[in-house]
Amino acid sequence: MIKLYDLAGRDPDLRFSPYCWRVRMALAHKGLEATTIPWRFHEKTSLPGAPANDKVPVLVDGTSIVADSTAIAFYLEDRYGNGPSLFAGSGGEAHARFIVAWADSTLLGAMAPIVAPSVLPILHPSDQATFRATRESRFGAKLEDLHAKHAQKLPAVRTALTPLRITLAGQPFLGGNEPSYADYAVFGCFQWARCVGAPELLAPDDPLNTWREEMLDLFDGLARRAKMVG
Amino acid sequence: MIKLYDLAGRDPDLRFSPYCWRVRMALAHKGLEATTIPWRFHEKTSLPGAPANDKVPVLVDGTSIVADSTAIAFYLEDRYGNGPSLFAGSGGEAHARFIVAWADSTLLGAMAPIVAPSVLPILHPSDQATFRATRESRFGAKLEDLHAKHAQKLPAVRTALTPLRITLAGQPFLGGNEPSYADYAVFGCFQWARCVGAPELLAPDDPLNTWREEMLDLFDGLARRAKMVG
Repeated sequence: MIKLYDLAGRDPDLRFSPYCWRVRMALAHKGLEATTIPWRFHEKTSLPGAPANDKVPVLVDGTSIVADSTAIAFYLEDRYGNGPSLFAGSGGEAHARFIVAWADSTLLGAMAPIVAPSVLPILHPSDQATFRATRESRFGAKLEDLHAKHAQKLPAVRTALTPLRITLAGQPFLGGNEPSYADYAVFGCFQWARCVGAPELLAPDDPLNTWREEMLDLFDGLARRAKMVG
Repeated sequence: MIKLYDLAGRDPDLRFSPYCWRVRMALAHKGLEATTIPWRFHEKTSLPGAPANDKVPVLVDGTSIVADSTAIAFYLEDRYGNGPSLFAGSGGEAHARFIVAWADSTLLGAMAPIVAPSVLPILHPSDQATFRATRESRFGAKLEDLHAKHAQKLPAVRTALTPLRITLAGQPFLGGNEPSYADYAVFGCFQWARCVGAPELLAPDDPLNTWREEMLDLFDGLARRAKMVG
């Protein structure tokens, strides 16, 4: 059985990492079962492959230990080549790397000031001080102040999403007629916000709501059934 | 012989449209010869397929008339399937649409306030009044004022380019080991800036300079040999 070390909050069933969600969706896409193992930020030395591996996701498949969500996706595509493809060809692989990079930098960068304040209270107590210090240094503001003023940060997220909106006006998924790893990479960011109970990111009339609902429905509602805060 | 209606300035040899450059690179990628026909914004009724087709690029290939750079790229991939692929598979096609949308919205949106002031003086006199009016309305500023303060707009371009920089740190082209239409879609934006003599967009130490130089070298320096202003 494949094992996935998966970021958890104080509640071990609350799994909210955008990167781990990418892997969980990719595993389901491939039709693979996996046991997820809750892991917290302060448990750095407990991971397979530590100390080189000091954050999740880390996947253990037999004798293979693979860290990093993108590396795991490519590992799964290669190892389980008979399952449904995550990339649909070499061009799909190469171009997906750009979409992942966009999600990691532009999209998560715009989302983080809105979502991070909601992450803090759900973390394990041993994770909270470091999380607060690193994020408040990055944003140059107290997390509570960011939360109070989150509405000011929404336009930047909605503008950043423009290329996603344009693309999905022409096809149901980033992968075309079927979701691909690019969809999971972007959706993981929304699932992060959802699980921690962050303020709603999309306007009610944003056409991206349709795609997000479809992603929540995939694999018998894998993401929709996930534990949320509260 | 394929014909491509191609945006030109007052000087008919100055070809600067980011969308037309995408097509010229795509034609070269496929090993196809084409005659380019200079066209100016005010010549709306002169295009094949007018009045539905009122802007370039428009490609004429035998009895086929194809407008819109993305549609032309997919037409070439389909019609000339034996040539080198522009997308490398169905996933490459689907994911390329996101990269094109990103280039059209995020990247060109950030570049436009810097590049548009340099476009104005190279236009055919009959095109200048409309260009000035539409752009000054969009930007809420005089083009001359934008040009004087262009340095203030550079950080937004360089930040917008982050996902390109991340991707090209791991592979030589967006297409992987070889350029794809996604490379041409993004490069067309840089070629637009280059041909009109806009202020330099990249810092001297930006690793994207390497990719841009490679793109200029492709196809015996097709883009490098292009006429520039002055």
